Amino acid sequence: MRWIHFSAPGAAAAYGILEADDRIREVRGTPFGTHEPTGRTHRLADVKIQVPLVPRTFYAAGLNYVKHIREYAEQTGNPVAIPPQADIGYRAVNALVAHEEAVVIPPDAQQVEYEGELVVVIGREAKGLSEADALSCVLGYTIGNDVSERLWQASDRTFWRSKNCDTFKPMGPWIETDFDIDAAETTVRVNGKVRTHFRTGEMLYDIRTFISRMTRYLTLHPGDVIWMGTDGKSPRIVAGDTVEVEISGLGLLRNRFVAR
Amino acid sequence: MRWIHFSAPGAAAAYGILEADDRIREVRGTPFGTHEPTGRTHRLADVKIQVPLVPRTFYAAGLNYVKHIREYAEQTGNPVAIPPQADIGYRAVNALVAHEEAVVIPPDAQQVEYEGELVVVIGREAKGLSEADALSCVLGYTIGNDVSERLWQASDRTFWRSKNCDTFKPMGPWIETDFDIDAAETTVRVNGKVRTHFRTGEMLYDIRTFISRMTRYLTLHPGDVIWMGTDGKSPRIVAGDTVEVEISGLGLLRNRFVAR
Repeated sequence: MRWIHFSAPGAAAAYGILEADDRIREVRGTPFGTHEPTGRTHRLADVKIQVPLVPRTFYAAGLNYVKHIREYAEQTGNPVAIPPQADIGYRAVNALVAHEEAVVIPPDAQQVEYEGELVVVIGREAKGLSEADALSCVLGYTIGNDVSERLWQASDRTFWRSKNCDTFKPMGPWIETDFDIDAAETTVRVNGKVRTHFRTGEMLYDIRTFISRMTRYLTLHPGDVIWMGTDGKSPRIVAGDTVEVEISGLGLLRNRFVAR
Repeated sequence: MRWIHFSAPGAAAAYGILEADDRIREVRGTPFGTHEPTGRTHRLADVKIQVPLVPRTFYAAGLNYVKHIREYAEQTGNPVAIPPQADIGYRAVNALVAHEEAVVIPPDAQQVEYEGELVVVIGREAKGLSEADALSCVLGYTIGNDVSERLWQASDRTFWRSKNCDTFKPMGPWIETDFDIDAAETTVRVNGKVRTHFRTGEMLYDIRTFISRMTRYLTLHPGDVIWMGTDGKSPRIVAGDTVEVEISGLGLLRNRFVAR
């Protein structure tokens, strides 16, 4: 099932269920609490797609695919450092934009790159989950582009502007509740041309490992998200480029990059 | 003026204005949007104080007082590294607890310490503020205790469990809108005995510097908070200890530490 957050012309944002014929069945409420059909339907082509949710806490795995870790180390001239354990990090909600919204490159940004990522959306409160039970708190999955400025990533003490400039976190287009990660592939295209391709499930630490380890120490809440990291390498993205992140079975997240 | 977030017995949480006679004048709405008096009043002693807000984004300056930076470097055996610029970091809302709520020490935590901090509460959306105008987006100030497990802080790739275990972020007791940072002193007591004392305003990078630099790249939103860092050093805190962080002109944040 696909949960979509959208706004119809002249109406406030609402959630709906996207059906195979591109029809949205609008609901009252949210996927994270009670909800009921309104009886209203919309054509997907007629609405604006909104960010699927503004997370309560925005978690990100960071380095979680071995090839990406090697290539990033090569680029920065640092030794290859494979994380010895699943330590989660954070991103910030100010940076979120929806499918088809622009990523705005600040005037002093120099080396902007994409990172196509699987996003886990938490649907139920969870603490102390075993790996076997870890997925019981997951509502569904969406797609993220963890846009990064590599010089700031190297120079700054935190990732605050390298990863979290306004508009640097495209997420969407919707939340898919039925997803087979083992069959999934992530493909990133720049201006229509494939530049990165990897098996989505080939993570260093998988979703169960992260959720089980995280919930030993912290409570996950409905509306938290976990971005699972990326593989491979990105070319430098410049104003005018369009980046599409596609994950088979989930959909496609497309954003144009523009200069501020 | 003091904004307090509280719950009266049997009632949902509400905001109110705390007056000098310890009377709370309840409002409908929040300090971050429209609000109006309800006509209801409560005695402070009769209510439960709640976390002043659950921030939209939870910013933290981290290393921002020179003495603390030196002492932390000494403790970890690392060279003293004074941050060359105001790079903001993040904490997580799962960890928040209110004044008088317990901080729960996980069974495998070993070196738990306090960090008494001034907290800036953002009241208005802001982008591109000059240092001169930086404080125009501030609603007020509260107190935070940035509880930290130092071994995890050294071993983990991020601060996820060293700083953000459930209950590791006491914040409160209320939001004070009138505050003279130059006159303020921060005092931390353990079981009633003063263990840390410093001038609140003696920061490496002040509030204006942080807000101006942050809003070059990101939008601050009503309900964001910025924790401004701490000075000095903490003893090891163990189950049974009570930690009080007092900032003159703001109030006092008290929390007991317990074992899980």
